[in-house]
Amino acid sequence: MKYLEDLIKEQGEIWPGGIVKVDSFLNHQIDWKLYQEMGKEFYRLFKDDGINKIMTVEASGIGIACVAAQYFKVPMVFAKKYKTSNIDSDLYSAKVHSFTHGNDYNMVVSRKYVNKSDRILLIDDFLANGQALLGLKSIIEQAGATLCGCGIAIEKGFQPGGKLLRDQGIRVESLAIIKSVTDDTIEF
Amino acid sequence: MKYLEDLIKEQGEIWPGGIVKVDSFLNHQIDWKLYQEMGKEFYRLFKDDGINKIMTVEASGIGIACVAAQYFKVPMVFAKKYKTSNIDSDLYSAKVHSFTHGNDYNMVVSRKYVNKSDRILLIDDFLANGQALLGLKSIIEQAGATLCGCGIAIEKGFQPGGKLLRDQGIRVESLAIIKSVTDDTIEF
Repeated sequence: MKYLEDLIKEQGEIWPGGIVKVDSFLNHQIDWKLYQEMGKEFYRLFKDDGINKIMTVEASGIGIACVAAQYFKVPMVFAKKYKTSNIDSDLYSAKVHSFTHGNDYNMVVSRKYVNKSDRILLIDDFLANGQALLGLKSIIEQAGATLCGCGIAIEKGFQPGGKLLRDQGIRVESLAIIKSVTDDTIEF
Repeated sequence: MKYLEDLIKEQGEIWPGGIVKVDSFLNHQIDWKLYQEMGKEFYRLFKDDGINKIMTVEASGIGIACVAAQYFKVPMVFAKKYKTSNIDSDLYSAKVHSFTHGNDYNMVVSRKYVNKSDRILLIDDFLANGQALLGLKSIIEQAGATLCGCGIAIEKGFQPGGKLLRDQGIRVESLAIIKSVTDDTIEF
């Protein structure tokens, strides 16, 4: 999506280790207009798939998923990150490894809010290693619901998450795919 | 706001200790239509105050603040909860006590995204003890920005936060104020 690629080029900051900081419009300060454009685009891409629920995981995905939910006119459910390993019996849970923080966490969703009849679109701000999305996929499978696809703002094409998900037959639509990052350029 | 009060009455669950669970529409599963109605109402209440930024703190406030930002057509900035006590010099921070989790945490905001010219509306899903909002107020003061008011979805009128903030001269607009909770009734 040109709107997003332009913002990445204009405002994205390149940090050591191939990190692209998009704090000024995507995941710390938020550009309301960008969020609307992304919501509209996800709707255009997935409007014929009978989506009746959007899911994400806290925290950065919540805003994008909420704005997108307006276009689909469906509820949004976000998984919570859970500190303890004691999982209540009324929760679905998945263990997720965070490469960013170098640790594992449990994500949980109440059993009340995912069920067999759900056709779910996953939304997230970043796709790098894909672990968070695989956690959400596991929860969807536990509930017997249907995963219709993933809508991602920025995919890091040089990291393995995109291939990992697509190799499992999951439809992944990323609005910007960063092919490579050098010290001073970002290539799409 | 009648729409919100009706949802609380219909779907809110009363848990021991005066806890009202609104997981089914406000802060786990999200009702997109409610979020839009709240956004419109915050805009109606604060549209003449020259708001040029909305702020909240992760996680549950993010969605409401993103949807509201569309009506104000202004950026939204969310404070992040910080695990370590080493605060980078490029961050504003405030120490906040969480009564829910019984611990302290630091909330941080990049210095780049709050500045003197900002006229800020704070948005959050719940107001109980008011500590998170006081943390955000402290960050606004550190930046020399102006706090124009707080837009809250649900205020627990039987807890001290609302009085604490209003006694400091802060305009607080809560879309539903729960006056009391018994074993089987919620009173507004």
